[in-house]
Amino acid sequence: MTSFPLSRRLVSEALGTGLLVTAVVGSGIMAHRLTTDIALALLANTLPTGAILVVLIIVLGPISGAHFNPVVSLVFTLRRELTAMSALGYIVAQTLGGIAGTLLAHAMFELPLLQASTTIRSGGAQWLAEVTATFGLVFAILAGLRFRADAVSWLVGLYITAAYWFTASTSFANPAVAIARSLTNTFAGIRPVDLPGFIVAEILGAVLALMLANWLLMEVRNPQTLSETEAIP
Amino acid sequence: MTSFPLSRRLVSEALGTGLLVTAVVGSGIMAHRLTTDIALALLANTLPTGAILVVLIIVLGPISGAHFNPVVSLVFTLRRELTAMSALGYIVAQTLGGIAGTLLAHAMFELPLLQASTTIRSGGAQWLAEVTATFGLVFAILAGLRFRADAVSWLVGLYITAAYWFTASTSFANPAVAIARSLTNTFAGIRPVDLPGFIVAEILGAVLALMLANWLLMEVRNPQTLSETEAIP
Amino acid sequence: MTSFPLSRRLVSEALGTGLLVTAVVGSGIMAHRLTTDIALALLANTLPTGAILVVLIIVLGPISGAHFNPVVSLVFTLRRELTAMSALGYIVAQTLGGIAGTLLAHAMFELPLLQASTTIRSGGAQWLAEVTATFGLVFAILAGLRFRADAVSWLVGLYITAAYWFTASTSFANPAVAIARSLTNTFAGIRPVDLPGFIVAEILGAVLALMLANWLLMEVRNPQTLSETEAIP
Amino acid sequence: MTSFPLSRRLVSEALGTGLLVTAVVGSGIMAHRLTTDIALALLANTLPTGAILVVLIIVLGPISGAHFNPVVSLVFTLRRELTAMSALGYIVAQTLGGIAGTLLAHAMFELPLLQASTTIRSGGAQWLAEVTATFGLVFAILAGLRFRADAVSWLVGLYITAAYWFTASTSFANPAVAIARSLTNTFAGIRPVDLPGFIVAEILGAVLALMLANWLLMEVRNPQTLSETEAIP
Repeated sequence: MTSFPLSRRLVSEALGTGLLVTAVVGSGIMAHRLTTDIALALLANTLPTGAILVVLIIVLGPISGAHFNPVVSLVFTLRRELTAMSALGYIVAQTLGGIAGTLLAHAMFELPLLQASTTIRSGGAQWLAEVTATFGLVFAILAGLRFRADAVSWLVGLYITAAYWFTASTSFANPAVAIARSLTNTFAGIRPVDLPGFIVAEILGAVLALMLANWLLMEVRNPQTLSETEAIP
Repeated sequence: MTSFPLSRRLVSEALGTGLLVTAVVGSGIMAHRLTTDIALALLANTLPTGAILVVLIIVLGPISGAHFNPVVSLVFTLRRELTAMSALGYIVAQTLGGIAGTLLAHAMFELPLLQASTTIRSGGAQWLAEVTATFGLVFAILAGLRFRADAVSWLVGLYITAAYWFTASTSFANPAVAIARSLTNTFAGIRPVDLPGFIVAEILGAVLALMLANWLLMEVRNPQTLSETEAIP
Repeated sequence: MTSFPLSRRLVSEALGTGLLVTAVVGSGIMAHRLTTDIALALLANTLPTGAILVVLIIVLGPISGAHFNPVVSLVFTLRRELTAMSALGYIVAQTLGGIAGTLLAHAMFELPLLQASTTIRSGGAQWLAEVTATFGLVFAILAGLRFRADAVSWLVGLYITAAYWFTASTSFANPAVAIARSLTNTFAGIRPVDLPGFIVAEILGAVLALMLANWLLMEVRNPQTLSETEAIP
Repeated sequence: MTSFPLSRRLVSEALGTGLLVTAVVGSGIMAHRLTTDIALALLANTLPTGAILVVLIIVLGPISGAHFNPVVSLVFTLRRELTAMSALGYIVAQTLGGIAGTLLAHAMFELPLLQASTTIRSGGAQWLAEVTATFGLVFAILAGLRFRADAVSWLVGLYITAAYWFTASTSFANPAVAIARSLTNTFAGIRPVDLPGFIVAEILGAVLALMLANWLLMEVRNPQTLSETEAIP
């Protein structure tokens, strides 16, 4: 929890989620316009997303924690590090900021501001991918905070860079970003009707990560005794 | 503000802006010669630009602050961290260094040294892109200096890597670099007649970032009181 | 050696190796589906692998050491920093985790869960490549632990990013990952019958690296005397 | 200057230069086999080279300084930080190590071990590119050592990643690597007859960088007085 007043924390969450969505949607549009090779377009969508995440988390993290993601705020609420009221504010700010990010990308690329995506992303395999993606993201954040808090920005940026490719859904892993991406009928879009499946999967992945982290990262009570049992005689 | 004499600071600004422009223009020429895929060419333009920014800011930052950008010098002048006279010197050094960088790239690639770009980059969407690009750059610098001064080189390199793709203008975000790029009729060029629109947009983005930073990053007076109100009862 | 109980260390090794394999196999499938250019597919396989390695080593290293690789566990056993019993547990956990990682990738991409690879990877040149790849990996880890323990995650991620390209085998360098990759008939696969040659080569490379490191990294007894002899008169 | 005995320092230089050349030549072969797009091949040559440089400098730097480059050893000799005798040993070790690196790459990719390149790299523009490339490399090293010694590995890796693209010669910037690359008739080769021009240009670039660094990085005697003159009244 930071010491900044809530008003500025909410602006930080809206600004960060907004720029993140602008990066995701905007780089998708740019890439898709410049090449017919879909792998290259995805690469040109991946690298800016990973890069901007590192930047946004470093510069806004000290203000609001740089969640930019409702399931991350949910996890911190379950850990009692955020009040329910603040979490609600965070989630609203993230969602509104994300939508503004889509509008900004559309404006910069001279596209209709309001769109609805027609890209189908649904079915069990996609949902499994979102569970996996969000599980890994939230676990990386929680373990990173435990062991190397100064490196969390890099962990998130690198994790998303990887997960774009190894999850079949290209790793949305974020309900606010998913909602914002449902409003663009471009490379990074998702049909509005497919949102509920994604969001449920993302919440599930986050809760699984929290449960694993609670056990795996638990403080060790008698470290010396334990390490002695391991010593080579 | 550094303790190096102004003469060396000006050489540092000229050298840094020059090598930055050589990287932008040179990698654009190289990429465009080697492929017909424009997205791949832009990627091969993006990565060297981001990489050289990290290097130049680390090695020249301690000498001159590594602005390499008139709007960054403007912002530090408005913050009263640079005198108007020094700022003027910085901007002249950046502009001359940038132009020399274009000439060096042309010489290395056996192109006519003096050229004028014919690449049209104009209109409201492009200007909005430049406002956005420069806003994000300047905000990242100011927030980075506030929270993680040792990481500013990475912030700038990663931010530009992302902004190349998510802004429709490929993120010039720098009047000195824009002027230098108006003198090359290659991949990275911009028509001289389009310069004023870009420069005005860049100044606007920078000033907006400064205004937001002044409020968002302001010191918190009673941090303990604030964090108590957030505590879970 | 960490102070975490063995049960959690084994889960950490299984989880880390599993996600590593999911990243390798999953990004290979995604890349191969999206492009016909094999170099681009390999690049889209390389970057996620390197990125996830940095993440996994940072977040799981404090728990289990983040070996994720039987030959790394072997080397630490030979250095007497891991008991033979723990090493056995590690290797079993890595292998089972790796196989689970392949299954997860198949499930996410709607492929048959159980497959056997038909990709031939055999012969002296391939084995030399695996000796080289594993030698470099293990040497980087041992020297990194000696000089910059905080950077080992980056060393491994960057080393594998490079070795994917400069070794003719694309640098498996890991028997548990090789076994897991023998169970997928996709981009990243290897025929089960080719496993023994790879595994022997990987063990050989690891032992060579350990021998070199024992000599090259050995503590210097009288550093001052030695550096005096080097001083310019 | 390190405290390691000269024998180990020479092995470190040979090993590091060897693996660097294996990375350059091997990734060039791999890339050229997998794609017909030359820009993509160069990208797949660039990223492994940059990545392995970071690794090699971190793990071998504490032993030998991680020059891997005769002109770097020359510069440290001119700065009287290395004796002429040690420098001679370094340069021999770098050259022999580099040649061994080419042979290893050929062996891994099942190519004739001994080859002579037929790739023409000559003329004033190429030499200017090599002067520029080596100037930037050596200046980055010297300024990095002065201001952020812990980051030199990243500076070199990122600088070379950029210079591959912005110099018309793809930035050899290293006589030992150039000699080793003259012995491979693959993507990364250079005709033996073109070596002298490259080597002279590289020495010139290095000496220019040393001269600039001697002035630009010189200690500031009365920093307080200077910074007072800059203060806003």
